[in-house]
Amino acid sequence: MAGGRSRRRKSPRASGNPEELWIYGRHAVNAALKNSNRMAKRVLFLRDNLGKDEPLPLEIDVKPEPVSRDQLENVLPLGAVHQGIAALMSALPTIAIEDICGNAKILPNALIIVLDRVSDPQNIGSIIRSAAVLGAMAVILQYRNAPQITGVIAKAASGGIERVPLVRVTNLSRAIDTLKKSKFWCIGLDSEAKGSIQQVKRPSHTALVLGAEGVGLRRLVRENCDELVRIEGSGAMTSLNVSNAAAIALYALRQIPNS
Amino acid sequence: MAGGRSRRRKSPRASGNPEELWIYGRHAVNAALKNSNRMAKRVLFLRDNLGKDEPLPLEIDVKPEPVSRDQLENVLPLGAVHQGIAALMSALPTIAIEDICGNAKILPNALIIVLDRVSDPQNIGSIIRSAAVLGAMAVILQYRNAPQITGVIAKAASGGIERVPLVRVTNLSRAIDTLKKSKFWCIGLDSEAKGSIQQVKRPSHTALVLGAEGVGLRRLVRENCDELVRIEGSGAMTSLNVSNAAAIALYALRQIPNS
Repeated sequence: MAGGRSRRRKSPRASGNPEELWIYGRHAVNAALKNSNRMAKRVLFLRDNLGKDEPLPLEIDVKPEPVSRDQLENVLPLGAVHQGIAALMSALPTIAIEDICGNAKILPNALIIVLDRVSDPQNIGSIIRSAAVLGAMAVILQYRNAPQITGVIAKAASGGIERVPLVRVTNLSRAIDTLKKSKFWCIGLDSEAKGSIQQVKRPSHTALVLGAEGVGLRRLVRENCDELVRIEGSGAMTSLNVSNAAAIALYALRQIPNS
Repeated sequence: MAGGRSRRRKSPRASGNPEELWIYGRHAVNAALKNSNRMAKRVLFLRDNLGKDEPLPLEIDVKPEPVSRDQLENVLPLGAVHQGIAALMSALPTIAIEDICGNAKILPNALIIVLDRVSDPQNIGSIIRSAAVLGAMAVILQYRNAPQITGVIAKAASGGIERVPLVRVTNLSRAIDTLKKSKFWCIGLDSEAKGSIQQVKRPSHTALVLGAEGVGLRRLVRENCDELVRIEGSGAMTSLNVSNAAAIALYALRQIPNS
């Protein structure tokens, strides 16, 4: 029985059904359950935690199942920090970059993050979380994640993925072109750039383009940016973790009044 | 033979000898090998990577050993992103908070980070890295890490741990008192604070105090700060990942001229 159940529970992880994913961790699960664009298929919680944790939202589609630690961990990636809760949720509807640009038209100002070859799901999740706190409207990346990876991103985003759409594109240079046509000023972050981020002029719509750690922006992506800037430090090293660089850049841009 | 060597290689991980630790990842290992305060005991590299990677520093104490992937991964924590290289290094000499305060005396301005109950080694490592880029002189925390955890911190710090000392204290409130006596103005980050970080007056010496995600600063630590401020966002969520909050706060403080 226990073994059989464990094996059945493994299937969503193994199948990689792109229509659904396991979301885990208190903040991530609560935010996902409150998102009307998702449907809950199963909700598992550690039976030892009954009554100890914050309550789940009242209106959810399924009955939460009390389970053992083994049963819970069986459906999740190895080492997942689940905080005693996981939910099998329908995936969010796909959003195209054109939809984002359409939404941006009516906004007085808009900030978008574009990620070039950033692949670490923890970093992507942290960047989505910072976007949700600092008011960026979308994160764009050229990467088709497996649902399991998306679960890691959702955990690191701590609910942010329900607020800030993650837009996947097949060609990043073309995505930057699309943004430019929609009047986004594209600022690339480059540790070798001459200009500093606090000196940029910020038009109403800005896209912040970040490359992977170590390798930075690809040549074509860099050349396609309207402006390249760096984050000025005063310490012994120059290269920040990419999610920290994104957080600082978002904050710095927010301090600059629109020109 | 292979098995026997693997078992021997496991011993540093298992023994937890506080005098030595495995450091892994290209940046972390290179920085550790260049640090004259450390001694290299062993250097292992993936024999498949021979000639492909950036060269090791010329003057190191031991002969690098080409090994198989299994042999390399045997000495490291599960899932460690080693990039084909690991070094068994002597631990850095312990530094006391009084030493840091003594060093700060002769500086025109000094910035120190204090972490209250932040325990995730990735976050601690990222914060040390940001400190090394943005010019903070030390990271203080009330936490006695096992050497293996210190390896994870060193990897996430990407060389920063060789530049910015990690100072462990037994009582954080007392550490804040010590900093105050050395004329550090202690600014606590608190998402419920009235003041915003860009409005602070920054004296020459500043300590930035951050609490763990979710729980924030403990009451005594909060009350011991000279000032509490928040990072202002404009988005739907309020809570940043702690390493992103630290990065933004360090950057924001650097923008404020000393008063």
